[in-house]
Amino acid sequence: MHKLKLIPVFLSACVILIYIPCSLSHTQAGESAVCVACHENTTPGVVGQWRNSKHSENDVGCLECHAASAAEPDAFEHWTKTIAIIVSPRDCASCHDHEYSQQKGSHHAKAGQILGSLDNLLGEVVGGMPAVDAGCRQCHGAIVKVDPSGRPTSDTWPNTGMGRINPDGSWGSCSACHTRHEFSVRQARQPEACGKCHLGPDHPQIEVWNESKHGIMYHASREDLRLEGENWRAGKEYFVGPTCASCHMCAVADQELTHDVGERISWTLRAPISKKLNMVVYEDDTKEDILGENPLMPKVGTIQTAKGGQAKRIKATLTWRERRARMQKVCQQCHNASFVRSAYKQFEEVVLLYNEKFAGPASHIMAELRKTGRITTEDFDDPIEWTWWELWHHEGRRARHGAAMQGPDYTWWHGMYEVAKHFYNKFIPEMEVVAGKELARDLLNTYVYTHPGHEWHRDGMSKEALERIQEFYRERYGR
Amino acid sequence: MHKLKLIPVFLSACVILIYIPCSLSHTQAGESAVCVACHENTTPGVVGQWRNSKHSENDVGCLECHAASAAEPDAFEHWTKTIAIIVSPRDCASCHDHEYSQQKGSHHAKAGQILGSLDNLLGEVVGGMPAVDAGCRQCHGAIVKVDPSGRPTSDTWPNTGMGRINPDGSWGSCSACHTRHEFSVRQARQPEACGKCHLGPDHPQIEVWNESKHGIMYHASREDLRLEGENWRAGKEYFVGPTCASCHMCAVADQELTHDVGERISWTLRAPISKKLNMVVYEDDTKEDILGENPLMPKVGTIQTAKGGQAKRIKATLTWRERRARMQKVCQQCHNASFVRSAYKQFEEVVLLYNEKFAGPASHIMAELRKTGRITTEDFDDPIEWTWWELWHHEGRRARHGAAMQGPDYTWWHGMYEVAKHFYNKFIPEMEVVAGKELARDLLNTYVYTHPGHEWHRDGMSKEALERIQEFYRERYGR
Amino acid sequence: MHKLKLIPVFLSACVILIYIPCSLSHTQAGESAVCVACHENTTPGVVGQWRNSKHSENDVGCLECHAASAAEPDAFEHWTKTIAIIVSPRDCASCHDHEYSQQKGSHHAKAGQILGSLDNLLGEVVGGMPAVDAGCRQCHGAIVKVDPSGRPTSDTWPNTGMGRINPDGSWGSCSACHTRHEFSVRQARQPEACGKCHLGPDHPQIEVWNESKHGIMYHASREDLRLEGENWRAGKEYFVGPTCASCHMCAVADQELTHDVGERISWTLRAPISKKLNMVVYEDDTKEDILGENPLMPKVGTIQTAKGGQAKRIKATLTWRERRARMQKVCQQCHNASFVRSAYKQFEEVVLLYNEKFAGPASHIMAELRKTGRITTEDFDDPIEWTWWELWHHEGRRARHGAAMQGPDYTWWHGMYEVAKHFYNKFIPEMEVVAGKELARDLLNTYVYTHPGHEWHRDGMSKEALERIQEFYRERYGR
Repeated sequence: MHKLKLIPVFLSACVILIYIPCSLSHTQAGESAVCVACHENTTPGVVGQWRNSKHSENDVGCLECHAASAAEPDAFEHWTKTIAIIVSPRDCASCHDHEYSQQKGSHHAKAGQILGSLDNLLGEVVGGMPAVDAGCRQCHGAIVKVDPSGRPTSDTWPNTGMGRINPDGSWGSCSACHTRHEFSVRQARQPEACGKCHLGPDHPQIEVWNESKHGIMYHASREDLRLEGENWRAGKEYFVGPTCASCHMCAVADQELTHDVGERISWTLRAPISKKLNMVVYEDDTKEDILGENPLMPKVGTIQTAKGGQAKRIKATLTWRERRARMQKVCQQCHNASFVRSAYKQFEEVVLLYNEKFAGPASHIMAELRKTGRITTEDFDDPIEWTWWELWHHEGRRARHGAAMQGPDYTWWHGMYEVAKHFYNKFIPEMEVVAGKELARDLLNTYVYTHPGHEWHRDGMSKEALERIQEFYRERYGR
Repeated sequence: MHKLKLIPVFLSACVILIYIPCSLSHTQAGESAVCVACHENTTPGVVGQWRNSKHSENDVGCLECHAASAAEPDAFEHWTKTIAIIVSPRDCASCHDHEYSQQKGSHHAKAGQILGSLDNLLGEVVGGMPAVDAGCRQCHGAIVKVDPSGRPTSDTWPNTGMGRINPDGSWGSCSACHTRHEFSVRQARQPEACGKCHLGPDHPQIEVWNESKHGIMYHASREDLRLEGENWRAGKEYFVGPTCASCHMCAVADQELTHDVGERISWTLRAPISKKLNMVVYEDDTKEDILGENPLMPKVGTIQTAKGGQAKRIKATLTWRERRARMQKVCQQCHNASFVRSAYKQFEEVVLLYNEKFAGPASHIMAELRKTGRITTEDFDDPIEWTWWELWHHEGRRARHGAAMQGPDYTWWHGMYEVAKHFYNKFIPEMEVVAGKELARDLLNTYVYTHPGHEWHRDGMSKEALERIQEFYRERYGR
Repeated sequence: MHKLKLIPVFLSACVILIYIPCSLSHTQAGESAVCVACHENTTPGVVGQWRNSKHSENDVGCLECHAASAAEPDAFEHWTKTIAIIVSPRDCASCHDHEYSQQKGSHHAKAGQILGSLDNLLGEVVGGMPAVDAGCRQCHGAIVKVDPSGRPTSDTWPNTGMGRINPDGSWGSCSACHTRHEFSVRQARQPEACGKCHLGPDHPQIEVWNESKHGIMYHASREDLRLEGENWRAGKEYFVGPTCASCHMCAVADQELTHDVGERISWTLRAPISKKLNMVVYEDDTKEDILGENPLMPKVGTIQTAKGGQAKRIKATLTWRERRARMQKVCQQCHNASFVRSAYKQFEEVVLLYNEKFAGPASHIMAELRKTGRITTEDFDDPIEWTWWELWHHEGRRARHGAAMQGPDYTWWHGMYEVAKHFYNKFIPEMEVVAGKELARDLLNTYVYTHPGHEWHRDGMSKEALERIQEFYRERYGR
């Protein structure tokens, strides 16, 4: 019976042999048939996924992607072929060069460069390396190390982190969004693809979107979205949603698709204090941020010293206003210009409230506490450092992301409510303990009470406000 | 090429001109074709949604809803037409009067009336207005203000809050559930529509439902739900689910659909202490709650002074028992009467446990602390006020909602577990700090230890209970 | 009109009468037609679900499952028939004996045996019985009590808890996964079925899976999963997903389906300290765990004293290595052997980090605090007991489950981050308070600082690490 089972395998292998044309592949045509014939038994799921893929439809087989030259650090012999397990963005670029050039300089590609960040400190030191390998690095990407046999090491692989640093030196992982081995656009257009990493206490984008009108429409009418189509433009091929990809990546009207997911973003919402984001694009497609409302942007065509010290010619620049205009072009497929302006206004006011009422004062206070030796310069050894960390990195982000994507529950309850609650009930009391009475009073007067939003905390609430509240509850709930 | 693009627009405009019959519209027939011809380019998504709508099918175009008389506060000239951006429930009522009459007096319509509530105090004072605009008011609704040009102001618009107070004075927003510009029933029948607001730490109805058998069946068999149908009655047109709308709104057997989503609710689960809900309906379709197990209900036909001071004739009354009977009629499409009674029993026991063991004692203690000057009458300036607030407004609601809709994880882990944990480990210790030794002992003896459920806290647990526990863990996990 | 309505009911009753063959049922054929004729009006939803079921297709009617003998404790007369409301696994076994034999000894079947656990103590004593009835027991199952009329009591019914203890003495509830009255395999193959109980703060398996690549693929391509099929094997009938059932239950290649959902699990991730899981299967299909890496496994065929004191012959044993091999056979439908080994390596390293850096030290410290009388032997009366409880029961499980199923956000942010944060900022400070200075120092030196992962806490971080961090933020966010 085992032999009988192999007959269809053999037949389908034949079919594939016949179908793969020479012209397409950079390996000899039809060679993948041998791979398929075996893997149909050893890992049939992968073969099934591939059969449903556009790759298979277009005669792109196993070796078109996995073949390697012996010189590559992760190349090894596998049944007479030289292959590599990891298919890097540079490998994908042999067919998808345009996409690679967009992805290359994006924040996504750099997601693995968090060596010096507080997040990483937390992970490696406070948590422990195994939690970094199976946690942080499964989204951020790891440096994939290769053992002497050419196989990736078990601490760095499996890894589909977005900023993976591949053995060939390239950054990123296309399969982070286009899951192997179907690699479909359909999947990457759906929100779950992004939700693998954009979720949770520190940046709950998928949760925010799910509760937004955009998410609601998507869930109610996903079947109408024509997710499979060659073209997929809001307002052209589909009218509901949108998904993450619709706004941050996809083409609309006369604006092209981009694989730099941050291109249309005009604020950084992840930093302790939000700033406007401008961009410089170098000739080699790498990119750099320039922060600020009105920075002096360098001239296109000039050469400047890029991060890392290399001199590079500037190919293009993009101010935060231009980036915003690109996003708003998407919004305007369904909303008129004044609606879009107002939505942005509401969003920005929340960012400014966060910056000015809470994060600004708190960050100044933290700096003073360090300067005066009230807390050490070491992170996470004083309770107030944890409080400040979660205030900006978790709660403050939730407020800002909630406002950016119209998720009211995240803007308020998971966001600004938590920011305010912990600012007044944890941050200030903990500051008072470490600062001592005198310095505490000074810090409050200098950084906190200078914002009118904190007056109630110093002066108490008005009698009228209190009476209005009591009256409301009496009427509503009879007590 | 731009001109070529306009040809199909022109043709479709012609088609529309031909199709819109005079009889339907309160504006001149076919006038919307001009709107469509332009907006097909400027905001094609909206036009696409509308084309998929029943409105479009029935020749209800743009101006049928957006046309305004010059006297309206938010009317303005737009390419020779007088229009308004906001379509209020009163506007919708020109065709959907029956639905408006149901919605008008509902709690949903009043969701914007939270001016004097603690929630609002938190938002405006402790948080800040921008967080209220982009947070609270995107569910509760805002008073939409209009600038001198007739356009809504950017702090109050966009807004699809359920209790929006519109420029024409009407309350609510039909598009809160029937998202523009498709306005489908299908969407409003799906749980995500409700989940925009009914989620999160303070009333996680969508999360509770998602984990309930009802949610599980829905997700497993959504395709069988015939969500598009003219009629949509559990036990008639569909057999799985149910969704939020199925139970709280939709017709079953000989019971009609209602757009007062609270009509079938017999307990208030949002108040600090839950009470039974009875209802008075006035001749103008406004409604009022009467709280309590056996209140004296006013007679139908009599005139009484309504909230706000106006004398109104009573059209109908509905006791909590009648409201419950309406809900149970829905349950009984799938469950027999004794099953339904028992499910309600289990639910009510949780409400009573919450009321009597935790919320009652805590609310008495709070009142005593204020009366004796141990804490101020101001809210949120003493830590215990935050603890009490989250106890009833967050955790206690989660327990009650969890039990109401059979979500065991919300009943226990997100609900009563948190209530108990914080009652014993935060509320009582914080009370002991502000009350001082003597008063603390009195308060515990008067309000807490009078409930047998707190005996363990005073007397310790029995030796038998402790031994049983140690034995269990030894057997189970070998230690 | 009411009479007219009954005509189709009568006709369909006739059709059913004709269709039900004698051979199948242990009651007289066609008797259920009478049930249907009436319940089509009283509870039409149930009848509709049943009509869509395989049961209905195969002429299994109401009485095939609900008929009871008068001797059964929950039997009662209902319109001339003797029936029982509860259909127990033993009842289902009259057709599905093979499945029953698998389910019988599983952890699922024993989920109601938590009488002596801390969870139950929390529920009954700290929370209260109603919260146990509507919370805990709706997943774990209750002992269903029957009143003198044969009806289940309202505190124990409705109940579809997985470990329900039925009036006939059998354990479990088939409808926990195969929801009545469709009882479909399709539903049980979907993740939501499991998510009723496997969610939330203490074991968020559904959340972990949702964010994993497996969940993402499922949501993106659910339509391709052929969930209805007779056979449903990953890599054969479908290629995306997998779901919970795919890995923990379903057949693949030459491995059979099992209704013991724990069979392929090789670690206990729920215990305070994780251990390897080995299994003994007795002749009566009951099972017992043997914990440990290399325990002495008893010989098949020998008789030993089982838990509860009964002597039983051993039918089979299954070491953790064999259990793991079974799971890995599933993985290998889509992943090659070295990928699977590495994924398991990453997972195990997290478990060991949790065991050795956090849970081990903390559990030793708890034991010392009790032994030295610093805290009572009673649970939950000292704050540190709540901290330790949530450390292992909530946070530590989340880390372990996150790593087991490749959910990076749960591994880190909801998991190990919370474990570390609370270990350093709550557990240790609370220990220092109850232990006093001297004992605290001893405990830290004996149990904590012996692990190199805690060095930073004793010695501070290096200057280099601190500078690297400051540099990173300066470059990134301009401050």
